[in-house]
Amino acid sequence: MAEQLILHEYSISGNCYKIRLTAALLGIELERREYDILKGETRTPHFLDRVNANGRIPVLQIGERFLPESNAACCWLAHGSGLVPTDRFDNADMLRWMFFEQYNHEPNIATLRFWRAYVGEDVLSAEQRALIPAKAIGGNAALLLMDEHLTGRDWFVGDSVSLADICLFAYTHVAGEGGFDLSLYPAVESWLARVASLPDFVAMDAR
Amino acid sequence: MAEQLILHEYSISGNCYKIRLTAALLGIELERREYDILKGETRTPHFLDRVNANGRIPVLQIGERFLPESNAACCWLAHGSGLVPTDRFDNADMLRWMFFEQYNHEPNIATLRFWRAYVGEDVLSAEQRALIPAKAIGGNAALLLMDEHLTGRDWFVGDSVSLADICLFAYTHVAGEGGFDLSLYPAVESWLARVASLPDFVAMDAR
Repeated sequence: MAEQLILHEYSISGNCYKIRLTAALLGIELERREYDILKGETRTPHFLDRVNANGRIPVLQIGERFLPESNAACCWLAHGSGLVPTDRFDNADMLRWMFFEQYNHEPNIATLRFWRAYVGEDVLSAEQRALIPAKAIGGNAALLLMDEHLTGRDWFVGDSVSLADICLFAYTHVAGEGGFDLSLYPAVESWLARVASLPDFVAMDAR
Repeated sequence: MAEQLILHEYSISGNCYKIRLTAALLGIELERREYDILKGETRTPHFLDRVNANGRIPVLQIGERFLPESNAACCWLAHGSGLVPTDRFDNADMLRWMFFEQYNHEPNIATLRFWRAYVGEDVLSAEQRALIPAKAIGGNAALLLMDEHLTGRDWFVGDSVSLADICLFAYTHVAGEGGFDLSLYPAVESWLARVASLPDFVAMDAR
């Protein structure tokens, strides 16, 4: 019997959504368990002790084992599937875009979206407010790099959709909520529509 | 004939070192090509056009193809080797620690090391200086999480060394240069010694 899969999540988080989207595209059932990070529900002693000592969601629970880090959870789900290239270079190139997503994209685009659309700019600390210009520049640089890469290509790696596309889609398609103007990046906009047209695609707010 | 491998690097960077260490442990020869990031040598039109549009090192050149992102380059080198677990959970768990390294560890520990030991605290911008306390807290939180995980374990994943250890070793072993006190993390110190004792280990400054 297959192990039960539970996604410990905060459903407006793109990092959580990419796991749900990967599972949906692969026809894998996930049980969902919600935590409100604005209320500190991932910093309770129970969460830190049992789910993730790093105090973060998402965590994919696989039976009695816990896997933090959204992109690692996507890799577990998609293991051996068509979403993971078998070619040695393409496989590493997929991971390259996933590391780019966590290093250059998420800390800029996801953070500005969270601050502006969920926390509220008026309640940010002075330190957070001081970081906004650099995060806007960094986020636009990430979108420009994506746009140049996607010009003349349908997918990030090779000729078909891979986890690189799923993981980058999650926060890119809601970048407008962070103040980014996606109309400046036409190849990104076409690619977003391509991802949203995949069979078994689910939207971020689907229950 | 195997394709020629060229590492485009800045040799004091831990992100570059992890690729050299992976190659050394696997007996793979790399040609090294040095760029001084303090002189902007990765922002020239030639570099951006030919090596990496993201303007960053390291990049692993494999014949005529270019692979940015240090952890992705390690995955390419170690493909099919004993440094990459074949078990589905352990494989994803290795990637989990590698994503943690790029998200929670490198932006704090590597950045403080670079600012303090190579740029010089007195020439930092006001914005950079304002980030130091948060980066010190974040770096210590990453080291504490590692220390708790390593207590009672020899390696990050399973019973043997994997890329998770190599990638986390790179900046951890020089965290002192960033002002971090590794003696607070005894399990990390034991693990650093374990990595440094691996057959074919090479030091960061080896030519």
